Amino acid sequence: MILVIAEIICIGNELLLGTIDNTNARWISKEVAAAGGFVKRISVVGDEIDEISLAIKESLDRRPDWLIITGGLGPTYDDKTLEAVAVALGSNLFVENSAVEMLKKSYARYSSNYKMDEIRLKMARIPNGAIPIQNPVGTAPSIILKNRNDSANTNIVCLPGVPKEMEAIFTENILPKIKEIIGEFSTIEGNYEVIGASEAELAPALSNIVESNPRDSIYVKTHPRGYTEDNKPKLRIQIISKGKDESEVQLRYDNISNTLIEVIKKLNGTVLFVRA
Amino acid sequence: MILVIAEIICIGNELLLGTIDNTNARWISKEVAAAGGFVKRISVVGDEIDEISLAIKESLDRRPDWLIITGGLGPTYDDKTLEAVAVALGSNLFVENSAVEMLKKSYARYSSNYKMDEIRLKMARIPNGAIPIQNPVGTAPSIILKNRNDSANTNIVCLPGVPKEMEAIFTENILPKIKEIIGEFSTIEGNYEVIGASEAELAPALSNIVESNPRDSIYVKTHPRGYTEDNKPKLRIQIISKGKDESEVQLRYDNISNTLIEVIKKLNGTVLFVRA
Repeated sequence: MILVIAEIICIGNELLLGTIDNTNARWISKEVAAAGGFVKRISVVGDEIDEISLAIKESLDRRPDWLIITGGLGPTYDDKTLEAVAVALGSNLFVENSAVEMLKKSYARYSSNYKMDEIRLKMARIPNGAIPIQNPVGTAPSIILKNRNDSANTNIVCLPGVPKEMEAIFTENILPKIKEIIGEFSTIEGNYEVIGASEAELAPALSNIVESNPRDSIYVKTHPRGYTEDNKPKLRIQIISKGKDESEVQLRYDNISNTLIEVIKKLNGTVLFVRA
Repeated sequence: MILVIAEIICIGNELLLGTIDNTNARWISKEVAAAGGFVKRISVVGDEIDEISLAIKESLDRRPDWLIITGGLGPTYDDKTLEAVAVALGSNLFVENSAVEMLKKSYARYSSNYKMDEIRLKMARIPNGAIPIQNPVGTAPSIILKNRNDSANTNIVCLPGVPKEMEAIFTENILPKIKEIIGEFSTIEGNYEVIGASEAELAPALSNIVESNPRDSIYVKTHPRGYTEDNKPKLRIQIISKGKDESEVQLRYDNISNTLIEVIKKLNGTVLFVRA
């Protein structure tokens, strides 16, 4: 199985101030996982060139296959992502004609009465070697750029911070590339509510399950959920089975859930299937 | 003004799989910002000792005053945070008696019929020099530890991943320490809905505002919100003014919002106050 490792860097002071949830990181993580890839790290930094370029350099040192960056592509003073990418790669920004054409196409959707001034042109000033991608929802183009200075040949992608714009460009332009590398992939997930068995009591069974299955083929996690009125522990158990072969994935899932249900019964606990 | 820099590391595969929102990072960020501190970086890593200890070492290299870690303190196979802290600091884990007492107190809340076995004792095995903190909601104790190997003397805090437990311990034991260092601090925030003025048109005014105010005393951000049916751009503007002196903070806030309202009027735009 081909292992595709991704990292995500989300840029924006609003994320460090707790003003908004980081829905972009969660959405991208889910898409990458469903395609069979692994998000290994999510980083959030503010709108500062030094902070952004440091985070990018640190990420490239860890050699992911994909580095997906969101936010900071717009026209305002605090949109510094492309400049920071150039700093991190020791490269320069230049006005790319095809990016200017993309901007014109975006603005034409709303008005014929705009000026392609310096502030708007900023969004077409991209790092050397970057390929611009049309923004089908907003204005600022995205870019994709292969970093040839690390042994992983990391694909660097800069997407807008506005979720609708980011999702449209990722779905249309990035996800298909990741899926093409990974090929066929299937996932089965189940969630169970457990009453009357504690995390500590289930710990040995969980260790056994994890040790007896191939690494990265399953994911089993207990989430404590407090106690019932009569002081019985409540848990949520999440089981994910994944891989290339659909019937193997199903078999692994069934084995794990049956094993856990048996263990919980022996502990005099109750199991409820919650959702797939 | 004393600058208190914090970093957050959130641990859990479920965050990298997109199973849940990272509400812990947002909650802590908001609390730290309201107290007058700065969260400079949020990192998310999975339940792997190598990944966690690497993230901790990288963070300590950036010398924050506080490193707040959430998740991975429980009794199951994938709870590896304390071991990773020990690895990152080149230190060891040992069973701390006061942590064992805390565990006993937690378990006594639910039952007198439990065994302090190896699996439960794991939660009292803490890094050398760490001070345990009672978990008033769940079972696993938190720890606080001063790293004396970096010039910042970073305070390392490990909190549970379960939000209610994390919030209780942070509010009771960590936030007061941060507030004591910073002292008096006030913040005013306002959000405006703008119709008919684009980010690009407001960009010069925003730059002026940011340049004419002391660094870290204000935060002004535009968030594009698409277009009206008749193709006018919609924006959200967030204004935050903060500092030690309440009347200065108010004055700065009023100046910024008045300036922006003037600019938007000149662009024939409409401004609506949304919320504080």
